[in-house]
Amino acid sequence: MDQVTVLAPATVANVVCGFDCLGFALEEPFDEITLRKIDKRDVRISHHDDFGLPTHPTKNVAGIALIAMLDSLNADFGFEVEITKRIKPGSGIGSSAASSCGAVFAANSLLGGRFSSNELIDFAMEGELAASGTKHADNLAPSIFGGFTLVRSAEPLDIISLEFPPLFATIIHPQIEIKTAEARAILPKDVPLRAAVRNWSNLGAFVAALAKGDYYLLSRSMEDLIIEPARKSLIPKFDELKAESLAAGALGGGISGSGPSVFMLSETIEIAQSTSSAMHSIYSTTGVDFNIYISSISPTGVRLAQ
Amino acid sequence: MDQVTVLAPATVANVVCGFDCLGFALEEPFDEITLRKIDKRDVRISHHDDFGLPTHPTKNVAGIALIAMLDSLNADFGFEVEITKRIKPGSGIGSSAASSCGAVFAANSLLGGRFSSNELIDFAMEGELAASGTKHADNLAPSIFGGFTLVRSAEPLDIISLEFPPLFATIIHPQIEIKTAEARAILPKDVPLRAAVRNWSNLGAFVAALAKGDYYLLSRSMEDLIIEPARKSLIPKFDELKAESLAAGALGGGISGSGPSVFMLSETIEIAQSTSSAMHSIYSTTGVDFNIYISSISPTGVRLAQ
Repeated sequence: MDQVTVLAPATVANVVCGFDCLGFALEEPFDEITLRKIDKRDVRISHHDDFGLPTHPTKNVAGIALIAMLDSLNADFGFEVEITKRIKPGSGIGSSAASSCGAVFAANSLLGGRFSSNELIDFAMEGELAASGTKHADNLAPSIFGGFTLVRSAEPLDIISLEFPPLFATIIHPQIEIKTAEARAILPKDVPLRAAVRNWSNLGAFVAALAKGDYYLLSRSMEDLIIEPARKSLIPKFDELKAESLAAGALGGGISGSGPSVFMLSETIEIAQSTSSAMHSIYSTTGVDFNIYISSISPTGVRLAQ
Repeated sequence: MDQVTVLAPATVANVVCGFDCLGFALEEPFDEITLRKIDKRDVRISHHDDFGLPTHPTKNVAGIALIAMLDSLNADFGFEVEITKRIKPGSGIGSSAASSCGAVFAANSLLGGRFSSNELIDFAMEGELAASGTKHADNLAPSIFGGFTLVRSAEPLDIISLEFPPLFATIIHPQIEIKTAEARAILPKDVPLRAAVRNWSNLGAFVAALAKGDYYLLSRSMEDLIIEPARKSLIPKFDELKAESLAAGALGGGISGSGPSVFMLSETIEIAQSTSSAMHSIYSTTGVDFNIYISSISPTGVRLAQ
């Protein structure tokens, strides 16, 4: 096999109470990435979309991740990469993670699966480092492992796949720009111990709720006294989105990654659709363009296209 | 039934990565508490031990908890209470929680189980408030529910019983005094966000490890960058205790509650015994008196004596 196509879905990081460690994978939207093995040690990228992303391999997260993989093999071959992005860059739902994870997952398939999932994430983390200035895996982990993941440590990598019950996500992507660096700078360097205790109590409860399939506990645990209060002012109508989603029956939710997307989790597809309607009503009056996605949780993350 | 005897075991709070929320119940040591219903609205306490605890009901945590219960019932009856404490007060393994939880659990048995577990904890919390100045439930929750518990919130009470695999605790109680107030005062008011993230990643991982029965993950997750560094200087030979326990095969551990007891968790009773030997060797040279306990985790917490 010299060519493979993979679907690399969007991912939601932080998940309200798990800042910088928790994430989950969506079924859609997803990028489509085709890799061909070539005889020359090179990475050639072409984009079939309108986002104007750089195609030079050292400027493109997929390219950076593939170069890291080829370097580790001291390879005498390379890859030709065609990327059709459907996850808009800067949306806060893991667009760069989809590119880099999709690319290394596809490459690993062409190489007969010689790399472990953790090794793939290590390669992809080189892309995240270039994109955001830090090595973080909270979008990469669900992209590669699927489902809900907890990154206990990024260096060395320690990723836990969490059990989870059926859940449906509704995601609104307001078409405004929030720079990750800006969203980081707005955060406090120090936090009150009391607030930190509350956050870790919530994260512990959230993980337990996933394992038990306890939707009400999941709902109560999606509370954040530290990150959300600092960042929510960057997102128009954030409080209304949350209040009306809860009123529509959603279990809870908040900022996806560093925004601007906002996600909500629901117990059923019907509630996820009601939540979508509520979000639509609120944003229709803002003059801000937006997309809304409804998706179940992907148990696999990146997968081979059928 | 007008008389009942219960066994109220020691409990370990904080559990390294779950400051102020996580706890577990031991099988032993335990206090023995006998309650008799009496016709007069009164609480009469006698102690069959040498700890010199106050017996006036408003000065004794068991008395305070029972008064709270009687008040809620506007009762025309009372209780006579005999307490034989085997959990030394001030040891950091939930001595006051054993008294108050044992008393309200026994009273509830005499009353036909009319109160829920959460209501019992609410009564017992009045005792903790009097003993330590704050309403906290991290020892009360495992005492009443047994096993491992997470207190997501103390007001309103939100307690989660966690799944857990077979585990054995080794606990050393150095006979030195650490005032809870002093152990609180030594803590930072604010903590670096980076350290807080690490702590909540560890707690999330610990809860997942309990649910999966993943002993290695449990071991990696018992890490605390915030509380332990501040408090460990209060406990002689803390670092040696930890290092030698790990060398003996223990999974991990740290300060029990606010100390001075130090606990370690092991996968088997044999390793718990080796850990005990290692602790014994270290403390034999200190000139500090100490007790060491080995116990499995109690799935029930307080229980009726057979």
